[in-house]
Amino acid sequence: MMASAPHGGPRAPRIDGERLWRRHLELARHGALSAGGVDRPAFSAIDAQARRQLVDWGRAIGLVPSMDAIGNLFLRRTGRRPELPAVATGSHLDTQPTGGKFDGAYGVLAGLEALASLHEAGLQTERDLLLVVWANEEGSHFAPTTMGSAVFSGQLPLAEALAAQAPDGGRLEDALPAFLAAHPEVPRQDTAPPLHAFLEAHIEQGPVLEAAGLPLGIVTGIQGLRWLEVDVRGQEAHAGTTPGSVRRDALRQAVQMARALFAHFDALGDSVRFTLGRWRVEPGSPNTVPGRVRFTIDLRHPREAALADGEEAIRQLCETHAGPCTVAVERLSGSAPIVFPEGIRDLLDQCADLWAFPRMALVSGATHDAKLLHGVTTTGMLFVPCEKGISHNQLENATPEHLAAGTQVLAEALLRLADA
Amino acid sequence: MMASAPHGGPRAPRIDGERLWRRHLELARHGALSAGGVDRPAFSAIDAQARRQLVDWGRAIGLVPSMDAIGNLFLRRTGRRPELPAVATGSHLDTQPTGGKFDGAYGVLAGLEALASLHEAGLQTERDLLLVVWANEEGSHFAPTTMGSAVFSGQLPLAEALAAQAPDGGRLEDALPAFLAAHPEVPRQDTAPPLHAFLEAHIEQGPVLEAAGLPLGIVTGIQGLRWLEVDVRGQEAHAGTTPGSVRRDALRQAVQMARALFAHFDALGDSVRFTLGRWRVEPGSPNTVPGRVRFTIDLRHPREAALADGEEAIRQLCETHAGPCTVAVERLSGSAPIVFPEGIRDLLDQCADLWAFPRMALVSGATHDAKLLHGVTTTGMLFVPCEKGISHNQLENATPEHLAAGTQVLAEALLRLADA
Repeated sequence: MMASAPHGGPRAPRIDGERLWRRHLELARHGALSAGGVDRPAFSAIDAQARRQLVDWGRAIGLVPSMDAIGNLFLRRTGRRPELPAVATGSHLDTQPTGGKFDGAYGVLAGLEALASLHEAGLQTERDLLLVVWANEEGSHFAPTTMGSAVFSGQLPLAEALAAQAPDGGRLEDALPAFLAAHPEVPRQDTAPPLHAFLEAHIEQGPVLEAAGLPLGIVTGIQGLRWLEVDVRGQEAHAGTTPGSVRRDALRQAVQMARALFAHFDALGDSVRFTLGRWRVEPGSPNTVPGRVRFTIDLRHPREAALADGEEAIRQLCETHAGPCTVAVERLSGSAPIVFPEGIRDLLDQCADLWAFPRMALVSGATHDAKLLHGVTTTGMLFVPCEKGISHNQLENATPEHLAAGTQVLAEALLRLADA
Repeated sequence: MMASAPHGGPRAPRIDGERLWRRHLELARHGALSAGGVDRPAFSAIDAQARRQLVDWGRAIGLVPSMDAIGNLFLRRTGRRPELPAVATGSHLDTQPTGGKFDGAYGVLAGLEALASLHEAGLQTERDLLLVVWANEEGSHFAPTTMGSAVFSGQLPLAEALAAQAPDGGRLEDALPAFLAAHPEVPRQDTAPPLHAFLEAHIEQGPVLEAAGLPLGIVTGIQGLRWLEVDVRGQEAHAGTTPGSVRRDALRQAVQMARALFAHFDALGDSVRFTLGRWRVEPGSPNTVPGRVRFTIDLRHPREAALADGEEAIRQLCETHAGPCTVAVERLSGSAPIVFPEGIRDLLDQCADLWAFPRMALVSGATHDAKLLHGVTTTGMLFVPCEKGISHNQLENATPEHLAAGTQVLAEALLRLADA
């Protein structure tokens, strides 16, 4: 374990929970939706706006910005020994098309608040502290998810990321230059800064902590994920003149497949997470029998073997229900389940103890940038509750008290890691 | 019956089948797709291009153009008694998003060729002859279908048509002015010209004539149609963290509904035509549980009672399978089955006899502008075969011989109606 076990009392100064809350509301103005949510697509002008706001806040407390080739943004606080690998924290600022104010933004603003509290207390750490905004975590426009941290950690080649195509056919390599150019005051940083550790704070995005009545969760690991796309091809035909018996209706077969898939995964219970999120029906005209349907599958489970079985079942069920159509199942992306190191989980638990916050250990249902960082440095995560577990939704909500609790523990842990 | 029964031999000059075929290929360049089909959206710049081509061809044989407020285009050939109601023929030039070269275009070009043959023979008729291009027959971008003929026949108020909204949210009232302005040389005609009769030639868009080995079909009537939209509302949620047991997944319930609907209508056999053509899944992100799904239903049958039963079954099955979501079923449009007058069917049959074309009587599975004209004047339809019955598809095809046969009979019938 690279951090001395906490002894004596807390070392971190008290963070400002009121400022933390206010900044969530200010940041949420960039891409604000009518129902209180946020639409801030990765690599968009709105995404760039939000980052400029963050850079301004960082500059005010002496943080020095830089950005890499995929658009990961780094805000550095120099320590006494800048030659040592830095201690990093952060998350993402992009959102789902109809997302909330806290998913991603919390991890970034919690890190900013932690560094602000050190700045105001005049505390300098041994190691540099690095606040990071990972690019395109949601992957909802340009797949895959956690793109920025995947490129940073060497798990996704930059060229492959740049070739990503949006549903409208646009390529990232065409969209990215304008986004990078929207940060003229931020110098390029083309070599990944070496890291000593990475901590990510995030809302749980699930119902567990709220149900347990706890302000804090120490994340033990992250379940595995597979993204598949099912491509069903039939033949377009006139809706009025083509008898059902001679149709090759791609939608009809896609519906049979989807129903069989729901039945299969429903029977496995809540440990598996199965979602059909995007459907594309072509040509999409009310009086034309669809000739092609493509739908995505998001499959998650804490055990790799269960993911493999699930993918196999998906391929078999789609073939079984193809009828007169043809079907192809392609894996778009995937990631194995991971378990965070015991040492960092213990440190987070001890820091929570120092500040007397009750907490529990839990598995993350969502993928996070921390999953990719786990591959390159000692990584851990903290969760705070969100209302009714609702996320990826405009109704997403959290309490100022819970956000402050997670941020206080994050500040304590960052300080101890940076002085180790 | 307003037309003298044919006696003696044919009176119409022979039409030019080669020119007719060539013009189909020339017209298909406007909106040409790579696989041989056509994408010519109603009210688009491409739609206007195709109409300018037609106006040029018409002017060369003395046809005088005019256009009404919804974009119906009239090309008039003056007779000896212009004070009498005119005899009209025509169809439409807009296509499905991935349509063919013949759906609609044939009825327009057949009418043009018939008038060209009269022009070249120096034959003047008693009544004016009117070649009509009905606006937005497909209704695939701005619903409903047969919009232009519905407004012309007084069955759709102009204001209601102008309020039509595209899937992208655009309104027709905003798109139409630019389309009308794209025909500067065509004067406006704001009063509907009085009609004595209307004939429409069309490809069958079904497999019946080809299977029977006949070049010609005399259409007895058109089956009824209902367009419905099913709107399923649940709640967006994070795909990784929300257990299936607590989800309100709009896509999951839409799939259950669709499967039950297919099962219900499959069991009724080929007399009913049931199609789910357009699906909108929101937010449409792979890692978000869909909060809303809307899909369209196209239901057709020759008997009104069967349509009423079908709509009732749809409403019940959607309610039954709504699960934790809510569902609303809205009727977008509908039209009752119709039967064309016996007199005009006899005339078409006799004209086919004069030119010695074998034929059969059949019901139209598709809706056509003739269905709307049936409400305001004596109306009839002619079908020619199309390859494998494929339509609303880039592979749509027909033979020059069949197209010429239908055009020859159309010319004979127009001549006799215009001299009656």
